[in-house]
Amino acid sequence: MRSPVPDYLNEVLRQCHDDRTGELASYIPELAQADPDVLAAAICVPGGASYGAGDTSVPFTIQSISKPFTYALALRDRGTEVVLDKVGVEPSGDPFNEISLSEDGKPRNPMINVGALTTYSLVGGEDDDGFEQVRKGISAFAGRELEVDEAVFTSELDTSHRNMALAHMVRSHGVIQQDPGEVVRGYTRQCALLVTVKDLAVMAMTLAGGGRNPLTGEQVVPRWVARQVLSVMTTCGMYDAAGDWMTLVGIPAKSGVSGGIVGALPGVVGVATLSPRLDRYGNSVRGVRIFERLSHDMGMHLMETEPVAEIALRSAGDVDLHDGPAHRIVLQGGMHFGTAEAVLREFEVVPDDDKPVVVDISQVSSVNDVGRRMLLEGLRRLGLEHPLVVLVDPEAKLPDPQQDGVELRVVERLDDAAGAVGR
Amino acid sequence: MRSPVPDYLNEVLRQCHDDRTGELASYIPELAQADPDVLAAAICVPGGASYGAGDTSVPFTIQSISKPFTYALALRDRGTEVVLDKVGVEPSGDPFNEISLSEDGKPRNPMINVGALTTYSLVGGEDDDGFEQVRKGISAFAGRELEVDEAVFTSELDTSHRNMALAHMVRSHGVIQQDPGEVVRGYTRQCALLVTVKDLAVMAMTLAGGGRNPLTGEQVVPRWVARQVLSVMTTCGMYDAAGDWMTLVGIPAKSGVSGGIVGALPGVVGVATLSPRLDRYGNSVRGVRIFERLSHDMGMHLMETEPVAEIALRSAGDVDLHDGPAHRIVLQGGMHFGTAEAVLREFEVVPDDDKPVVVDISQVSSVNDVGRRMLLEGLRRLGLEHPLVVLVDPEAKLPDPQQDGVELRVVERLDDAAGAVGR
Amino acid sequence: MRSPVPDYLNEVLRQCHDDRTGELASYIPELAQADPDVLAAAICVPGGASYGAGDTSVPFTIQSISKPFTYALALRDRGTEVVLDKVGVEPSGDPFNEISLSEDGKPRNPMINVGALTTYSLVGGEDDDGFEQVRKGISAFAGRELEVDEAVFTSELDTSHRNMALAHMVRSHGVIQQDPGEVVRGYTRQCALLVTVKDLAVMAMTLAGGGRNPLTGEQVVPRWVARQVLSVMTTCGMYDAAGDWMTLVGIPAKSGVSGGIVGALPGVVGVATLSPRLDRYGNSVRGVRIFERLSHDMGMHLMETEPVAEIALRSAGDVDLHDGPAHRIVLQGGMHFGTAEAVLREFEVVPDDDKPVVVDISQVSSVNDVGRRMLLEGLRRLGLEHPLVVLVDPEAKLPDPQQDGVELRVVERLDDAAGAVGR
Amino acid sequence: MRSPVPDYLNEVLRQCHDDRTGELASYIPELAQADPDVLAAAICVPGGASYGAGDTSVPFTIQSISKPFTYALALRDRGTEVVLDKVGVEPSGDPFNEISLSEDGKPRNPMINVGALTTYSLVGGEDDDGFEQVRKGISAFAGRELEVDEAVFTSELDTSHRNMALAHMVRSHGVIQQDPGEVVRGYTRQCALLVTVKDLAVMAMTLAGGGRNPLTGEQVVPRWVARQVLSVMTTCGMYDAAGDWMTLVGIPAKSGVSGGIVGALPGVVGVATLSPRLDRYGNSVRGVRIFERLSHDMGMHLMETEPVAEIALRSAGDVDLHDGPAHRIVLQGGMHFGTAEAVLREFEVVPDDDKPVVVDISQVSSVNDVGRRMLLEGLRRLGLEHPLVVLVDPEAKLPDPQQDGVELRVVERLDDAAGAVGR
Repeated sequence: MRSPVPDYLNEVLRQCHDDRTGELASYIPELAQADPDVLAAAICVPGGASYGAGDTSVPFTIQSISKPFTYALALRDRGTEVVLDKVGVEPSGDPFNEISLSEDGKPRNPMINVGALTTYSLVGGEDDDGFEQVRKGISAFAGRELEVDEAVFTSELDTSHRNMALAHMVRSHGVIQQDPGEVVRGYTRQCALLVTVKDLAVMAMTLAGGGRNPLTGEQVVPRWVARQVLSVMTTCGMYDAAGDWMTLVGIPAKSGVSGGIVGALPGVVGVATLSPRLDRYGNSVRGVRIFERLSHDMGMHLMETEPVAEIALRSAGDVDLHDGPAHRIVLQGGMHFGTAEAVLREFEVVPDDDKPVVVDISQVSSVNDVGRRMLLEGLRRLGLEHPLVVLVDPEAKLPDPQQDGVELRVVERLDDAAGAVGR
Repeated sequence: MRSPVPDYLNEVLRQCHDDRTGELASYIPELAQADPDVLAAAICVPGGASYGAGDTSVPFTIQSISKPFTYALALRDRGTEVVLDKVGVEPSGDPFNEISLSEDGKPRNPMINVGALTTYSLVGGEDDDGFEQVRKGISAFAGRELEVDEAVFTSELDTSHRNMALAHMVRSHGVIQQDPGEVVRGYTRQCALLVTVKDLAVMAMTLAGGGRNPLTGEQVVPRWVARQVLSVMTTCGMYDAAGDWMTLVGIPAKSGVSGGIVGALPGVVGVATLSPRLDRYGNSVRGVRIFERLSHDMGMHLMETEPVAEIALRSAGDVDLHDGPAHRIVLQGGMHFGTAEAVLREFEVVPDDDKPVVVDISQVSSVNDVGRRMLLEGLRRLGLEHPLVVLVDPEAKLPDPQQDGVELRVVERLDDAAGAVGR
Repeated sequence: MRSPVPDYLNEVLRQCHDDRTGELASYIPELAQADPDVLAAAICVPGGASYGAGDTSVPFTIQSISKPFTYALALRDRGTEVVLDKVGVEPSGDPFNEISLSEDGKPRNPMINVGALTTYSLVGGEDDDGFEQVRKGISAFAGRELEVDEAVFTSELDTSHRNMALAHMVRSHGVIQQDPGEVVRGYTRQCALLVTVKDLAVMAMTLAGGGRNPLTGEQVVPRWVARQVLSVMTTCGMYDAAGDWMTLVGIPAKSGVSGGIVGALPGVVGVATLSPRLDRYGNSVRGVRIFERLSHDMGMHLMETEPVAEIALRSAGDVDLHDGPAHRIVLQGGMHFGTAEAVLREFEVVPDDDKPVVVDISQVSSVNDVGRRMLLEGLRRLGLEHPLVVLVDPEAKLPDPQQDGVELRVVERLDDAAGAVGR
Repeated sequence: MRSPVPDYLNEVLRQCHDDRTGELASYIPELAQADPDVLAAAICVPGGASYGAGDTSVPFTIQSISKPFTYALALRDRGTEVVLDKVGVEPSGDPFNEISLSEDGKPRNPMINVGALTTYSLVGGEDDDGFEQVRKGISAFAGRELEVDEAVFTSELDTSHRNMALAHMVRSHGVIQQDPGEVVRGYTRQCALLVTVKDLAVMAMTLAGGGRNPLTGEQVVPRWVARQVLSVMTTCGMYDAAGDWMTLVGIPAKSGVSGGIVGALPGVVGVATLSPRLDRYGNSVRGVRIFERLSHDMGMHLMETEPVAEIALRSAGDVDLHDGPAHRIVLQGGMHFGTAEAVLREFEVVPDDDKPVVVDISQVSSVNDVGRRMLLEGLRRLGLEHPLVVLVDPEAKLPDPQQDGVELRVVERLDDAAGAVGR
């Protein structure tokens, strides 16, 4: 059988295909040469599988889509305090190439040029290797070595007066320390890195997956960095139209002047599109349409509230151990706040008698930090009221469950519980 | 056993308890009389269970927290087109009581006063029953009949010059049609509705649960309305500090001048806090701290990316039917885009031979619209390549699975499949 | 002979006559009924003479042109401190009907509606006679009793939502104390006062002449008030286009929505035009053109620097008195800083000998306060170095010239000086 | 006798002397070294006489005070159309060193840095002599060769990041064509030109006198340029406080970061002060106080309306010529619109009989262009109604008075008129 997902992507592309509205970015001569009809989309899911449709192997320069990734690198390298001291996180309401500094001379956010120049300056050391650090970092997001399109780089550098203005402005406020010309040069190289939509989908899934590249398995940035970057993309990623984008699409995203858009839905999917004609906000016309379709048709929306509640409790009841009857609770699925809360409510109704309690988590698929803490506390409390708690956990999903003053036995199978109790 | 969740809430409150910073709202005399030390928090989960800590039964006037709910009622009553034509969805960057109209005289969003006055004017009919419609609608969110604090209403009406200014301003732009004085009067009554944090937690969970009140089971507003409201709360709910709130808390929220904050994490939880002292943005000082703690400690953040991936596939392998061997795939958990995509990949690797295929969804907890469509398409494709597809679905979680040209049998138990095949 | 001035005005009107561009103000129904082709201009000079061309006797409602005059009345009645505490003097950069408050809730200047509503509230007492005080005051500027166009008043009051919004806004900031509805009602009556361009030219000349009505001779407002009003008209009178207006016209001015413009060049002329079609700034299209022509052709520009230097010194030399020779200095023209400074330089070169000095100011046309002080000090110093100073001042233009320790004689004619000396 | 004017200046300085408030500009290290206690004032009057008090010979760098003069040079060299196409004339409301471009990328006015950089780029040719052209031009205003303080120049160039940002920004909009670095370098040299308050007073008087240097007699810029520059100084010269400055001082002015202020009252006076401590707007604290005193005490205010009306008519009556009686009108003072209008009214009342008319302008001090045209038209009309018009004009103040169809005789003395008539 062939998965219908690529067919679906192809269908979405087909529906947008004939839309010829919008204009190529004109201010960079080399970009104005781009084929305006190129059209591509790709998605990547948590396990690393990816799907594509259209011109998925056409390389193009990453441009502003590099911004969230360099921001991630800056956070990783300098820490949140240093970075927040230099660049804010509030939407600017301004078009992408104008100056937008808060009263203290700090760029409003890292998704506008002045903020992106500043985050570039924060990555790596002070010396000439700055760009190489950025290139390596963004390559780690993509899972392959990215290279610079030298022709576009040269073309952009020749017309980089605005970025020069912005760099001198933040230099004048002491926000950057380096030579403004060097920062603009490096940032322009960053913008000229060549990617495909496949690359971008992987990069997005890396953010959506807590900073871990689903292809290489590398933890490119810590989980807290991914959360911070996704948050800033949500409020500042799509220029003027943050509210429109949130209501219509609801995927943290970033667009670029070469026609790409990248989107990352936490825990779910990375998405990327390419179509060079831009609307008046500077966003790809057909790219926006594809995102709207994906969000609408696939329920890919941050505010998606359809009831996919996992039932944490598989069964509860009594079981016979060697020594007599015991209460038995079998859990399943992922264990996080929502599910653990339900489990704790189940623990509450276990009769407060002298029987042991068996909690079977062998069918639990994963346990996050909050789920772990809640489950442990529940086990501890059960242990205070019952002579014995048996945890069936063959894969050690709940590490270090032992706690002072609680009689807890960990076994691999329910059958072992008898011995456990018998001991 | 007693659930540790209330203990956790109590602990959070205890940690914030001694923070006496911030000021009571002073411009409404009656609010300035409030006990500044009141402190409460409550959460409500999808099934309707709720937890509280502190002064959870202290009633207070809902004030601006009513805004997202009236916005929901306006969307429900007038439809998205009419409402978007009157009120935008973009953040304003302005303090809550100043005029913030876009160039065409339209309020920028429904979370600022001028937008809230306009959405009030859109609910219900033109006559005097307007307020009663609003009261009933907000009561449906709370699951009980709410009433007006007449003393606060009178006090606010006496000092409602700003709202009068705003109402006249939108009246002058033709955005509202009614008498500005009547609209201000009704809106002021709306703001004076009395609630507790328990009410607010239920109201928030109603939004977080797709518009369905978890206590009464009433579908107060359609699912798309809840999505729209949560989206607007995300970008416009917390006044000036949208970026700060998104990065630090990441829960769509709304605060009110009487010291309440309500937050709704889609599909997960409704949260409410009360503490009357406000920071310079007009948000409750201790309320913000409690939200930060809940987000941080409980992973309640829109961008939470910890891997709680539900494993959709329980097992795959061969099974003997009466007539011979068949491929067997057992699914579990919730079925939505993320899980259905993994299922489809599993379908892809089923050998393309002449054996029947058994797909067992008896352990699947829920199926959303996207999951249903993807699963159906997968079953259809399997059916094109195999002589028979057996769907084990005792609870009819996948309605109307039959499709033209596909041999599909639905059975209640695997044992029944034999007969199915044998037929 | 007939003066060519009316011919010149007629010629200017003829040249602009066929310009049909611009639109009638549409938001006040009654104004939309106005004859769009009406065209008139009038000027009034210091002595009260006036000239007109076109439809000089067509009455129209004064609208925003009333603003500087009510501001003058507020300054007169409350003093500069109280008024500046309520209304600023800085340009707003905003269109005329939007809210423009500085951070402390104070209207930016009295020429925008919110400032004009506030100045209205400052004139006269708190009771219902407020409007009558304004009507009387503006009538005093015009030199005749002005009356309200009740139809326009009613029409405007019905569509006064913006002004209601503004009045409530300043009421909410405590800038006005009265009932906002009453203030809007009175201000709307003020705007509906009927005037002709002849009236407006007299009103402007009253400001240009230091607050004294050139027809009635009444000192309507003190000199310092006229200076303050003219200053504010210079920076805030012509809405968005202050810089354009200053460079192209250079006459402190104010325009109104009914198509009038009034201009006042200090000490020189009052000008008024009427033509109802407005440009996008809300200024009369042909009115602006007429003002540009008058400024350009007649040198009516604040920055006019053509050398019209009055020669203060008529002659200097020796004269024979009875007792012997004396120095004699004959002055002429107006005596102010510029001319007095030249006189003092002449005094400096009077040889420091024992001869008396005769200063003849019988041909001096006027002496302002600064000129008086400088001349007196010069006479005092001459008196310290010479045995006698004789001042020929038949019309007592230099009152109280006597100073301690100085031998000064005042005579009506030079012939009398002999006796003076002989005494 | 010694003129009291210097005494007055000294007295004003003495009164402000002890004010130690304000701060030295700190961002240019070299300026931070300045003696904060330096205090000086100078004025220059139309004839070129000047007065000073305090440290009038202390040289300091001209800084932003150079802006209006370079603007004048740009207008002279490129014409008003080209310059207005590059730089606007509207106040910006922004602090002096921030970017303030209108929507089309044009600097709002030439008094803010971004506008001053642009006007610098417009002076002279494209090559390296640009600065020399500026230096020569500003020197012509001062009447002596000015030189650059190389230490301040170097210090400012090192900290010119803001200006670099601004220059790149206008370069990106195509407003300037040159290399931004070269423009900043040249502009920084311009700001480092050394002047004294005596120089600045002469420079200001040159603007106030229609572009003619009162010392050298050189017409540095045309009259229309001076008018344009003074107009822009009025609305844009004093940063944020245009309205305050206009009401309190009323002298077109420009201040500089080194503590100077220059003011030019058209036709009357040039003023300059020096005191390095600056208020929060960047204006010299004591300088502002001195200007306020001069304006208040000396009536040096654009809106000064004290009646110094020159009586244009000296006498009117009959006179006997050889052939019989004639009407005789003797004029005096300066002849401009205001006075010529009065003369024309006098012409109107000349009886329309057969007698000749004698108009004696031998006591008229000056005639401007408008006065000339009005007087000529009046003479022409008199000539149409009377057999002969005799103009007594010994100094040929009214050139080319002859007009077709009018019998006009020009004589040097009234006695000559007899012959004129007899001819």
